[in-house]
Amino acid sequence: MRQAGRALPEYRALRERHSMLEMARTPELAVAVSLQPVRRLGVDAAILFSDISTPLPGMGVPFDLVEGVGPVIAHPLRNAADVAALRLLEPAADLPYVAEALRGLKAEVPPGVDVIGFAGAPFTLASYMVEGRGSRDFAHVKRMMLSDPDTWHQLMRRVAESTIAYLRAQAAAGADALQLFDSWVGALSPRDYAEFVQPYTQAVFQALKGTVPLIHFGTGTATLLPLMRRDGAEVISVDWRINLNEAWSVLGPNLAIQGNLDPGALLGPWAAVRDRADEVLRAAAGRPGHIFNLGHGVLPGTDPDNLARLVAHVHEKGATRP
Amino acid sequence: MRQAGRALPEYRALRERHSMLEMARTPELAVAVSLQPVRRLGVDAAILFSDISTPLPGMGVPFDLVEGVGPVIAHPLRNAADVAALRLLEPAADLPYVAEALRGLKAEVPPGVDVIGFAGAPFTLASYMVEGRGSRDFAHVKRMMLSDPDTWHQLMRRVAESTIAYLRAQAAAGADALQLFDSWVGALSPRDYAEFVQPYTQAVFQALKGTVPLIHFGTGTATLLPLMRRDGAEVISVDWRINLNEAWSVLGPNLAIQGNLDPGALLGPWAAVRDRADEVLRAAAGRPGHIFNLGHGVLPGTDPDNLARLVAHVHEKGATRP
Repeated sequence: MRQAGRALPEYRALRERHSMLEMARTPELAVAVSLQPVRRLGVDAAILFSDISTPLPGMGVPFDLVEGVGPVIAHPLRNAADVAALRLLEPAADLPYVAEALRGLKAEVPPGVDVIGFAGAPFTLASYMVEGRGSRDFAHVKRMMLSDPDTWHQLMRRVAESTIAYLRAQAAAGADALQLFDSWVGALSPRDYAEFVQPYTQAVFQALKGTVPLIHFGTGTATLLPLMRRDGAEVISVDWRINLNEAWSVLGPNLAIQGNLDPGALLGPWAAVRDRADEVLRAAAGRPGHIFNLGHGVLPGTDPDNLARLVAHVHEKGATRP
Repeated sequence: MRQAGRALPEYRALRERHSMLEMARTPELAVAVSLQPVRRLGVDAAILFSDISTPLPGMGVPFDLVEGVGPVIAHPLRNAADVAALRLLEPAADLPYVAEALRGLKAEVPPGVDVIGFAGAPFTLASYMVEGRGSRDFAHVKRMMLSDPDTWHQLMRRVAESTIAYLRAQAAAGADALQLFDSWVGALSPRDYAEFVQPYTQAVFQALKGTVPLIHFGTGTATLLPLMRRDGAEVISVDWRINLNEAWSVLGPNLAIQGNLDPGALLGPWAAVRDRADEVLRAAAGRPGHIFNLGHGVLPGTDPDNLARLVAHVHEKGATRP
C-alpha cells in the first residue's frame, strides 16, 4: 500500500526532524521509512520510500517540494529549447542513494517480503515538467501536444530514456518488481494516449522486459485499459472507479491485476472497510493473478488500525500473495 | 459551450469592473454575459451566466469566491448538527435575480436560440458543502458516507429538495432546458454512486420530468454510465475519456448524448481542432440525438477564433441542432 507510511506515528515522528527530500536522499532514512509499513502492518511487499520527482534534478529540472502542493518546478518546459536542454539521467551519478537504499532495504526486509522499486511514467513525469506542478486540466501539456508535437515527442523520448536507465539501476540494485506510476494518465482521451503516450510507455516496458515483474499504475483508466493491456506490463493497477471483473474482462486472463479498494474507504469504520475489502475479494474470485491493493495512495488521516486490520483480513481470507 | 464567455475579450472587459458574484447577481450583467458567446460564436443555445455555488448562501452556507481556487466555504458541514441547520432554498426570496436574468435572456436571445438553466447536482453541491472547497480525494465526503451515512443521506435529501425548487423556478422563468452539473461524480465507485448519490439525482430528474428537457452532466463517468442511464435525464453529457460510440452502446438508442470534444483540444491550432471535431462528428454518425459540445468548460487562454470556427464548422458539417 503506497504511502501507507504517512498514516503511521513512527513516520510522522521522523518527518518532524527531516524533510521528505532529505529522507528520500538519505539511504538509512529511506530504508527505515520503507520498513515501517512492513513492520507495523504486515504487508507482503515494501515499496521504496521516494517520490516520482526524485530524478528531476538529475535531468536538469530542479524543483521545490511545497507543503500541500507537491513538487513545484521554477522553470517549466514549454518549448523546443527547454526540451533540448534536458539531460539524460545517469542514475549512478545523479541519485546513487536510490540504489543504495534499495540494497539496504533488500538486506533488511523479513524473508518472503519483496521490494518494489518505481518511477514516474513518461507521461506523468513529462506533465510535471511542462505544467510545473500538479494540474487539473493539463492545458500546457495539451497545447504542446497539438501545437508543437515534435517537441512533445522529443520530450517523451528523453524522459522515457531516463526512466529506462533509472529502472534498470533499480533492478540491478535488487528490486524484486518495478512499478511505473502514471497517476495522471486518466486525463487523456484514448486517442491522445495512443498517439502521444503509449509508444513511450511501451518503450519503457520493452526495455525492462525479462528483468523483474513490471506493474503499470494509473487512475481513471477505465477507457484506456484496452490500450494499456498491450503496453508490456505483467500487472495492471486499476482504481475503484471500475469493477474488478469488468477490468479483468477487458484485460484478459493473461494479465495480473492490482487493486482496487478506494483509499477513501479506509477513512470509514472497520466494518465498512471490511465490507468493501470483501467486495474486492469476491470480484477477484481467487484468481491467481490478483494483487490486493488500494486503487491509489493511502490518504492522510487514515487510521493505522484500519490498515493493519485490512492486511490481516486479506491474509486470512486467503488472497494470493504476490 | 459552458464558460465560453471567459475566453472572450468582451467578457474580460466586464470582468475588470465587476466581480463574478456581482455579475451573477445582477440580471442585466448576467444577461449581457450570457449573450456574449451567442453573438460572437453563433452557438445554438445560451447558458445562463451563474455558478453552481449561487444557491449556497440561501441554504445557509455562505462562501467566498477565491481567485484561482473557486468557492471556499468558511464552515464546511461535517456533522448532523451542521446538516440540520441547512435551510431549504426558496428561490423567489433567496435568488430572485436568477429568474429575472432568465426572463431577460429569453427576451433577448435571437430566434431559434434556446436558453439553458442549470444547477449543481446533489453530489457535487453536497461535496462542496462538506469539503469546503474543490477536492481531489473527497476524503471528508467519503468519511461521512461511511462513518455517518444517516447524516450524508439527510444532507443529500435536503440538497436535492433545494435543487428541485431551484430548477422548477428556472423552468417557470422560461428555461428551455435544464442541466444538472455533477462535475465531481467521477470520483466515486459505481457502488458508492448507486448507494449514496443515485437516489437523489433520480429524485431531481423525477420531479422535473415533463417540464423541459433534462441534461445530466458529468466527467470521468465511463463506468457510471450504466447507472446514470436510468436516472431520468433525456440527455447524458460525456467527456473525451470515452469514445462516443462506446458511450452510445452503453446508454442505448433512446438517450441523447452531449459531447465530447476535449476542451484542451481547443488550445491547439485550428487544423488540430477541426481534426478532433471531425472525429466527434464521425463517431456521432449523424444520430439525431447528438448535441455537439465540449466534454467540460472552455479553458482559460482558449483562442476565441478557434471557438467561432468550431461552431461554424459543426454547423457546416450538418450536426443536429438541439
